[in-house]
Amino acid sequence: MHRIGIDVGGTRLKVGRVVDGQVVVRAADDTPHDFAQMIEVLARLVRRVVPEGEACTIGAGVPGVFDEAMLGVVDSPNLRFLDGQPLREALSAATGAEVRLGNDASVAALAEALHGKGREYPTFLLATLGTGIGGGLIFDGELWEGTAGMAGEYGHLSAASAFVPEDIPLCNCGNPGCLEVYASASRMTERGRARTGQADIELPELAKRARLGDPVALSVFVDAGRALGEGFAQVVQLLDIRVLLLGGGAGAIVDLVRGPLIDKVVQRCAGRTHSAYTVDRAELGNDAGLLGAAALLS
Amino acid sequence: MHRIGIDVGGTRLKVGRVVDGQVVVRAADDTPHDFAQMIEVLARLVRRVVPEGEACTIGAGVPGVFDEAMLGVVDSPNLRFLDGQPLREALSAATGAEVRLGNDASVAALAEALHGKGREYPTFLLATLGTGIGGGLIFDGELWEGTAGMAGEYGHLSAASAFVPEDIPLCNCGNPGCLEVYASASRMTERGRARTGQADIELPELAKRARLGDPVALSVFVDAGRALGEGFAQVVQLLDIRVLLLGGGAGAIVDLVRGPLIDKVVQRCAGRTHSAYTVDRAELGNDAGLLGAAALLS
Repeated sequence: MHRIGIDVGGTRLKVGRVVDGQVVVRAADDTPHDFAQMIEVLARLVRRVVPEGEACTIGAGVPGVFDEAMLGVVDSPNLRFLDGQPLREALSAATGAEVRLGNDASVAALAEALHGKGREYPTFLLATLGTGIGGGLIFDGELWEGTAGMAGEYGHLSAASAFVPEDIPLCNCGNPGCLEVYASASRMTERGRARTGQADIELPELAKRARLGDPVALSVFVDAGRALGEGFAQVVQLLDIRVLLLGGGAGAIVDLVRGPLIDKVVQRCAGRTHSAYTVDRAELGNDAGLLGAAALLS
Repeated sequence: MHRIGIDVGGTRLKVGRVVDGQVVVRAADDTPHDFAQMIEVLARLVRRVVPEGEACTIGAGVPGVFDEAMLGVVDSPNLRFLDGQPLREALSAATGAEVRLGNDASVAALAEALHGKGREYPTFLLATLGTGIGGGLIFDGELWEGTAGMAGEYGHLSAASAFVPEDIPLCNCGNPGCLEVYASASRMTERGRARTGQADIELPELAKRARLGDPVALSVFVDAGRALGEGFAQVVQLLDIRVLLLGGGAGAIVDLVRGPLIDKVVQRCAGRTHSAYTVDRAELGNDAGLLGAAALLS
């Protein structure tokens, strides 16, 4: 039985056949923003990676909020055409395979647990810093998905208290002060542009300047680190876990946020010192979603 | 092998022999605020509940922050004399029994999982509203203690965002805006006294008035519910769990806080509606700590 992972993104659909934690055959295409067409494209991509006439199981990582039975997505800001559609059933009918859906960040955490940094850390939160902030929780090597696959929404923890009495910005989810508004890659870039006055500066250049000691560039990462720490303090209070892995577009800036991040956690969580915490970069890159999705049915 | 539960409280030490989820013999005494004396009293109480010459194992629920190996407490605001003492070893030496320590609220959650409401709900957060707010997490029937037994600190999640731009009060832990400062039984009582102008009114009387529609009394519980909801929203974001049980001194006011609590969670957590959540009263009363502690070594 071949094991197929699907990564459903806002712009690209990626499909891969996975053997021993490696993608051995892959196929990809643009994401058509229409449900029936997307199913058609996915079925075609699956046929490309599975030898003809052979059976497979499919795990698909999808951004968004699932219904209780995890048959489909009820709220997906970047893939609105998926809302309320029977994704699992349609994909299964089009491919003849058993299908399981998972949250995109949760399956990335599962991949990291099985094939990446998780081999070193049995229990961790993976946060993916990109357009927004996703998250996945691994307890003793196992993915915790929650009642309907929505666990790990680190980006929507409240981080406003780190910045009182500053004005509290609104998150895309409609609430004030979510961590995401302070520390997603997009918002860090935005803040860097505002503070430097350069409308086209990108995150890697900001990071480079910060590493050279530029105080304006540094301030962007200090603020992001503080917010990430405020959010992680809540995770520590609730779960007493000690490891935070950063992935996604901004995983590379872990060296710049680590200090203020851990300072904030130590300030908020009694009885544990700096050395108790590990903030590290996730190991798997773009394949994390695929690899983790493929592992959903194992 | 007899199973013994110990509940180490700031004022009372309670010891019980547990059979099939029932305390069959119990003994208690005041808590001497001296480490050696407390061990002596506990050893005596254990001898009172275990038939002479017979063996036992001991689980002890203790309020405070444990060292990494869970051999003792490193930070216990209400039992300062325990800080840094080898509690587990000393108790084991004095009784000849194998001993395991657990956080007091976590063991109460374990008791609820095994013998109370947990038989109905496999996954929940138990919050105990008393002087402070404790918490314990049960995932699929199993206690999650975290790296060093400190998981479940619901009371120190940030709830300030529910009340912006009101001034943010300081928690006993030194941080601004912890849930505990809005919703512990003590703080609700304090707020009720300030708002009614009656310096001696107690929580049950406030609750009675609120149930009769008194707006001042009601406002205390609406605010507490909002804060509990802000905190539980973080739990839901992170874990996608849907059940909150309230225990401790203020468990009885669950009917008064449920509405504003769930409203706040729905507002903060996308894709889930009011009916997704259950906020219920914990079933076990004062014996929860004992029963759960006794189950630690099973």
